[in-house]
Amino acid sequence: MKTNASWGGRFSEGPKEAVAAYTESVSYDKNLWQQDIRASKAHARMLARQGILTRSEGETLVEGLDSVAEEIRSGRFEWRPELEDVHMNIEARLTEIVGDVGKRLHTGRSRNDQVGLTFRLFVADCMTQWQDKLSQLVERITDMAQLHVNHILPGCTHLQPAQPISLAHHLLAYAWMFHRDYHRLADTMHRVRTSPLGAAALAGTTYPLDPVSVAEDVGFESIYQNSMDAVSDRDFVLEALFDADLVMTHLSRLCEELILWANPNFGYIRLSDGYSTGSSIMPQKKNPDVAELMRGRTGRVTGSLMGLLTVVKGLPLAYNRDLQEDKEGFMDASHTVVTSLSVMEGMLSEITFNTDRMEAACRKGFLNATEMADYLVSRGIPFRQAHHITGHAVALAEQKGCTLEELPLDELQKLDSHFDDEIYAVLDCHAAVRRRETPGGTGPKSVHDQLDSLRDWLGALKD
Amino acid sequence: MKTNASWGGRFSEGPKEAVAAYTESVSYDKNLWQQDIRASKAHARMLARQGILTRSEGETLVEGLDSVAEEIRSGRFEWRPELEDVHMNIEARLTEIVGDVGKRLHTGRSRNDQVGLTFRLFVADCMTQWQDKLSQLVERITDMAQLHVNHILPGCTHLQPAQPISLAHHLLAYAWMFHRDYHRLADTMHRVRTSPLGAAALAGTTYPLDPVSVAEDVGFESIYQNSMDAVSDRDFVLEALFDADLVMTHLSRLCEELILWANPNFGYIRLSDGYSTGSSIMPQKKNPDVAELMRGRTGRVTGSLMGLLTVVKGLPLAYNRDLQEDKEGFMDASHTVVTSLSVMEGMLSEITFNTDRMEAACRKGFLNATEMADYLVSRGIPFRQAHHITGHAVALAEQKGCTLEELPLDELQKLDSHFDDEIYAVLDCHAAVRRRETPGGTGPKSVHDQLDSLRDWLGALKD
Amino acid sequence: MKTNASWGGRFSEGPKEAVAAYTESVSYDKNLWQQDIRASKAHARMLARQGILTRSEGETLVEGLDSVAEEIRSGRFEWRPELEDVHMNIEARLTEIVGDVGKRLHTGRSRNDQVGLTFRLFVADCMTQWQDKLSQLVERITDMAQLHVNHILPGCTHLQPAQPISLAHHLLAYAWMFHRDYHRLADTMHRVRTSPLGAAALAGTTYPLDPVSVAEDVGFESIYQNSMDAVSDRDFVLEALFDADLVMTHLSRLCEELILWANPNFGYIRLSDGYSTGSSIMPQKKNPDVAELMRGRTGRVTGSLMGLLTVVKGLPLAYNRDLQEDKEGFMDASHTVVTSLSVMEGMLSEITFNTDRMEAACRKGFLNATEMADYLVSRGIPFRQAHHITGHAVALAEQKGCTLEELPLDELQKLDSHFDDEIYAVLDCHAAVRRRETPGGTGPKSVHDQLDSLRDWLGALKD
Amino acid sequence: MKTNASWGGRFSEGPKEAVAAYTESVSYDKNLWQQDIRASKAHARMLARQGILTRSEGETLVEGLDSVAEEIRSGRFEWRPELEDVHMNIEARLTEIVGDVGKRLHTGRSRNDQVGLTFRLFVADCMTQWQDKLSQLVERITDMAQLHVNHILPGCTHLQPAQPISLAHHLLAYAWMFHRDYHRLADTMHRVRTSPLGAAALAGTTYPLDPVSVAEDVGFESIYQNSMDAVSDRDFVLEALFDADLVMTHLSRLCEELILWANPNFGYIRLSDGYSTGSSIMPQKKNPDVAELMRGRTGRVTGSLMGLLTVVKGLPLAYNRDLQEDKEGFMDASHTVVTSLSVMEGMLSEITFNTDRMEAACRKGFLNATEMADYLVSRGIPFRQAHHITGHAVALAEQKGCTLEELPLDELQKLDSHFDDEIYAVLDCHAAVRRRETPGGTGPKSVHDQLDSLRDWLGALKD
Repeated sequence: MKTNASWGGRFSEGPKEAVAAYTESVSYDKNLWQQDIRASKAHARMLARQGILTRSEGETLVEGLDSVAEEIRSGRFEWRPELEDVHMNIEARLTEIVGDVGKRLHTGRSRNDQVGLTFRLFVADCMTQWQDKLSQLVERITDMAQLHVNHILPGCTHLQPAQPISLAHHLLAYAWMFHRDYHRLADTMHRVRTSPLGAAALAGTTYPLDPVSVAEDVGFESIYQNSMDAVSDRDFVLEALFDADLVMTHLSRLCEELILWANPNFGYIRLSDGYSTGSSIMPQKKNPDVAELMRGRTGRVTGSLMGLLTVVKGLPLAYNRDLQEDKEGFMDASHTVVTSLSVMEGMLSEITFNTDRMEAACRKGFLNATEMADYLVSRGIPFRQAHHITGHAVALAEQKGCTLEELPLDELQKLDSHFDDEIYAVLDCHAAVRRRETPGGTGPKSVHDQLDSLRDWLGALKD
Repeated sequence: MKTNASWGGRFSEGPKEAVAAYTESVSYDKNLWQQDIRASKAHARMLARQGILTRSEGETLVEGLDSVAEEIRSGRFEWRPELEDVHMNIEARLTEIVGDVGKRLHTGRSRNDQVGLTFRLFVADCMTQWQDKLSQLVERITDMAQLHVNHILPGCTHLQPAQPISLAHHLLAYAWMFHRDYHRLADTMHRVRTSPLGAAALAGTTYPLDPVSVAEDVGFESIYQNSMDAVSDRDFVLEALFDADLVMTHLSRLCEELILWANPNFGYIRLSDGYSTGSSIMPQKKNPDVAELMRGRTGRVTGSLMGLLTVVKGLPLAYNRDLQEDKEGFMDASHTVVTSLSVMEGMLSEITFNTDRMEAACRKGFLNATEMADYLVSRGIPFRQAHHITGHAVALAEQKGCTLEELPLDELQKLDSHFDDEIYAVLDCHAAVRRRETPGGTGPKSVHDQLDSLRDWLGALKD
Repeated sequence: MKTNASWGGRFSEGPKEAVAAYTESVSYDKNLWQQDIRASKAHARMLARQGILTRSEGETLVEGLDSVAEEIRSGRFEWRPELEDVHMNIEARLTEIVGDVGKRLHTGRSRNDQVGLTFRLFVADCMTQWQDKLSQLVERITDMAQLHVNHILPGCTHLQPAQPISLAHHLLAYAWMFHRDYHRLADTMHRVRTSPLGAAALAGTTYPLDPVSVAEDVGFESIYQNSMDAVSDRDFVLEALFDADLVMTHLSRLCEELILWANPNFGYIRLSDGYSTGSSIMPQKKNPDVAELMRGRTGRVTGSLMGLLTVVKGLPLAYNRDLQEDKEGFMDASHTVVTSLSVMEGMLSEITFNTDRMEAACRKGFLNATEMADYLVSRGIPFRQAHHITGHAVALAEQKGCTLEELPLDELQKLDSHFDDEIYAVLDCHAAVRRRETPGGTGPKSVHDQLDSLRDWLGALKD
Repeated sequence: MKTNASWGGRFSEGPKEAVAAYTESVSYDKNLWQQDIRASKAHARMLARQGILTRSEGETLVEGLDSVAEEIRSGRFEWRPELEDVHMNIEARLTEIVGDVGKRLHTGRSRNDQVGLTFRLFVADCMTQWQDKLSQLVERITDMAQLHVNHILPGCTHLQPAQPISLAHHLLAYAWMFHRDYHRLADTMHRVRTSPLGAAALAGTTYPLDPVSVAEDVGFESIYQNSMDAVSDRDFVLEALFDADLVMTHLSRLCEELILWANPNFGYIRLSDGYSTGSSIMPQKKNPDVAELMRGRTGRVTGSLMGLLTVVKGLPLAYNRDLQEDKEGFMDASHTVVTSLSVMEGMLSEITFNTDRMEAACRKGFLNATEMADYLVSRGIPFRQAHHITGHAVALAEQKGCTLEELPLDELQKLDSHFDDEIYAVLDCHAAVRRRETPGGTGPKSVHDQLDSLRDWLGALKD
């Protein structure tokens, strides 16, 4: 294998084949070609502005880079593994196209800050895509919720029926998680959009560069204030991976519920055929495979995060080759996030809710016990005591195999003299939902406020 | 063991001893007592403002809570494990003090939203403490750096000498990491300072609460928009743990360098006796144990993050008892972050730099090779070619066992005719540092800019 | 704070208070006191056997160590944090009791190999306890399964009903997991029971020690073959943590099923009051908190494993202080495993199975579809095609809202002419279970084979 | 996209394109083709032996599978993503070749147990390859060590010089780690080589299968005792991943040392050009990139382990689609282990040790202080006191800027009257190494014992 042209002057032989295969990155970092070219064009323009290259040299480089981009886009570009990475591949081809001036492109920069800027551009582009998918999913959930404000199901804690809630309210809980993810990404983005260019290998450079203008050219907000930090920092990838992991964690919780709801004992939903699979041996099966797989894929993003935390821990300054390991895990995580959000959006769009089953389930499990306790409080009994009396009523109903509302008034009055006829209206599950109109509550007005608030947010995003 | 008074009405026997020991949390969540009381006082005041309690009831509760606080602060409070957690302990004592009105405190809330608010207050308080320690450490580093702007050492990449850099510049790389940590925490804080109160168990409540005013009362910025999300969300702890893990990761990198620098082959620093330990068998040892232990403690924070990610993944809505596992890991992480930042600040304050050894090390390893290459570029040679020629010069010097500046001019001219006498001034390491004045570079002006910028930031924090 | 007597000769001042608090381990490593004394006694006996100490010195040390043990056991021992760790505390007290000969105990060893042996003894003792608890749990499950060989429930894949299975068979799946855990621990034990004593600080020692006899004295199988490896190896803790994590993972799967089965939509089990908890706001709640918490506690063991993997990665030889972090995570994991296995055993002992609900659930979800397909195969139809025909039968029954066995014969014959009257006996769920008598299958004979096999194993353990 | 022929009977439409892309596994599980065919041939032979298929049908299937294998081996096989996975691809092609009898291959098994057996075969094959590479690496290290028994370098603890040790001894520490890895894999192998075939989907099957004979046919040791456990167990992958992670952890420690030793301040080794890389900007650089990258790659294996632990935790029985996530992480880990072990073996084979630098380093850092303390002990002073006196000698030498052996006798005698002329011979570093002949120690006899022991082991492996 040929010696890499970029650092080979002092080396008497090139790396072994096995070493080359072990260290190469072009097989995956070629995915960064657009960002590399964008960064290089910005660098070339700055070199010309600063008089480090002539105006014409700058233009030649920019046009040459555009030609390379065109070759890659059209599939004509030949990737050469012996050139190690995407950056050397592009520069080598550039020099073939534009001649020796191509070699001047690297003036005042190093692969360390070049890789740093390129990868930050890539991470930022991916995160923007995640945000798009998040907002589409929020919109889908909002649309679904709109149809189900008045449908009720048992709200659970500890997977035990707790209180009746609006189906819309339950769905919107997830909309708010993804909304929070969107804004967490926006915070992270400030740190991602910080340019390391100008740091060169680690110490800055002797050329009169203007790094701020390069940052502006590529749409970044700021530059690193310390060149050692600039080339060795991978916080931005870790943060993006963590954000991705929370997105997947939220999806995993939703998947868990879809899987439960599709179980015939629940029977709350029916997945469309397009989002289910069957069994090679059991002809009746209609499995929520897609939801299961998505839940499982949380693990791979957690794994990528843990992997990179392990890599960075204890590394001395400045750049160390361990950091090459920042890319594959991130790419895999980004692909997982994007496809999972898309597939979830599609899956939700084809779900059928069996609202009758949900409503029927509200009659099991004494969901209205809190209503009875609150009723007693409204009659002047301290809450803790009201809770205790209701506990006895539940035990009585359980023993008789009936619901709370099926207990006759005289039985209730034996438990406490404050009970009267009005208790039966109070115990109605729909009424119970309608009464919970605190901000963020499950009552219809509160749910409509949530819907309005999300619609406003989605509208603002589109502007 | 007695049945817990808060939910026992329906239960015929209390939990087994082993179960009680397995499920209790008071042994660690008593650390939240201040936050629980702060949250309860805000809740009581709101209940009175809303007319749910009388003004006098509200005052009685607030004063009663203050009495409980005083008992805990003075050590007179008796924690009762059979009351399970900090919240029931405090409420039980409150009721002993103020009588039955104490039972009204829980009106309109559940343990789910109570725990949620209390723990968010605790997390926010911890994070504020982390920020304080971070800024103190940044100040310490800034003070140290000020003294070493003109001392040089070999800047490394791949742990190989790369280019000479200013010691101040190297130290400031860490200041900027901790500065970034500070601001990441500030972003996270917005999500931590969101109040779940009003969500009750999961569905909101029938009482006409005013959750926004409770949030304001405790100094929070906003409230949750969905009650299901409010009681089941643990993103805020995960985010805080992740932020803590990055702080520890940065400390681990600094520790790694201190350990290397204390090795006699480097000999760049001398740790004070107070921050070193000896060996029970080897009398000569002076070990950087503190730095090693700190590097190792990164692992426990990574572990806590991993642990909680595992806990939350795939949990259905709303609250599940698994989430009780959010506290111990966080408390341990917070203690680790606070003590590590303090101890690092102390350790740095007593370090002695052996700047002579650092300077001497700059003469090994051809640190000025980049200077030679840049010199050739300034004579009109394309960078890639200049790099190649310099590579040959390095190989030659290596072969002769001398430095680049010790190669005679005629030898250099055999490699390339552009060399002249000026090369020798260019190869001086101090001069090399002085030439790197790009923003963020290691040159003295650039380093002074960094110092000014950090001083301004620290000054602003103090106002 | 006083300087530590064991290494202070060269130090002009003791560690700072904060440093002492940061580095001390006695607060948790005092749990190792029994193992430290066991190891020290074995070391003292060997020193005497080898003539390094006199016989009388050896006896004095052993008796002195017994006195220290007695003091600790009785609670009279005063732990002194300024002596850093359990080892120095014990040696200091020993010397107070026996005089200067106490100082000779450390002859030929270092804290590095002393800690190593002590901690290996501790890990081995913990693992033995795990094995005891595992076998008790397997016995409990076996006893339960014995009662339920002929009760059936829907076996699920993808949480969708798949085929009817014996309840005993389902329970025994867990018995086999814990059986596997037991044997994995036995494999790990060989590596744990390897003594590092004799490695001294890192290089071996000049004294004519007999490390093999010390290993035998403490019940270990072998010694390390290389002293550098001996003092820096922490594989044994990592392996034990991994084994613990698998135990918890298995428990988490069982907990997940108990939680599902306790949900009223399933209604398969009723947890006893002693293993359930209630709600402070919802009087009807009977929550499977114990199972949830146990599921959640898997996370902390995964976290400890991740933490220590992070610690060890990339450490140079030999001992580094980072390794002090091996203990707390392991102790926490061991406590989690022991209490979780105990509590699970107790919880299972009080569970009530609602076998009527399980049987009834078998009539939903077309669990007998595989039977139909197999029936068609027995009539000469290739499996893939039989599967296809049955798929149409399921679709037909679903459309009619009936079970497969409720489809009239003429309807079936329209789907395929091979159907005749015998199909209805084939579709019976109990018959379906009885037919699956392959080794490891759910049929009663196969289940009885499993029970016998586990009984034999449990019997052999007791001998 | 066409509906999957294996479960489509009941489905009115095929999965969406995006879903198909999301759920397919053929892009990576085609790597399992050899194992799938091996398992299927064993299954077919057993079906014939049991009379479930005719002898001729059995032969047709085996020959057909051989033809498919040949097509795949030669590259003529066309993989069809719409057939989802490797198993359906192979079966579909088999049926094209042999006709309808191909459909009978699946008799008595399900994809659940088929995948289970195939993947266990794959894991076992990979682990065998790891063992081969481990033994080759142990052999390489043994060969190297043989040459360096009498070369000494400073053995470090806390990265501080502790005692002089033999270079061979230091290298052999790693040989023993890899030796331990080999045997850990052998233990794991017993659990991997357990066949799930016969479990069918989850419950066993109605066909009179003989699973034990299939296990024997593929070289496995045993079968699962419970069909539910058989199809849902992924312990074997987790265990293999954990073992892989320890291998990488050991490599990471060795890499860390190589990186340190290649730093010019150490200067202990010179990496060959083939295992180093240069810099695009700094012409003098010779970076240990390969070692850095390998150290970093530990993270990806840790990540895969953590990822799969996350996946499995809390999954109910039996098979869930989440478990599809078991393959990619393992394949990546296996590739990482195999290539890392190979590359390390190659890298070591070309390393040059600068034994002069190592020897010279032994004169810095008071490595012989323990010798002085031991000398005093031999003169009758208790160890703790001897340690203290030596501490003062070190402080004195440090103050004078000399070594211990350069302190004049009268100065030593001022510290303690037991010193006499013999101390100077004792302080010689080579002598210090030679004196440490305890089992596992660094003395030449002990090192030769280690070499012999490893040679015997390697010899036995080859037989």
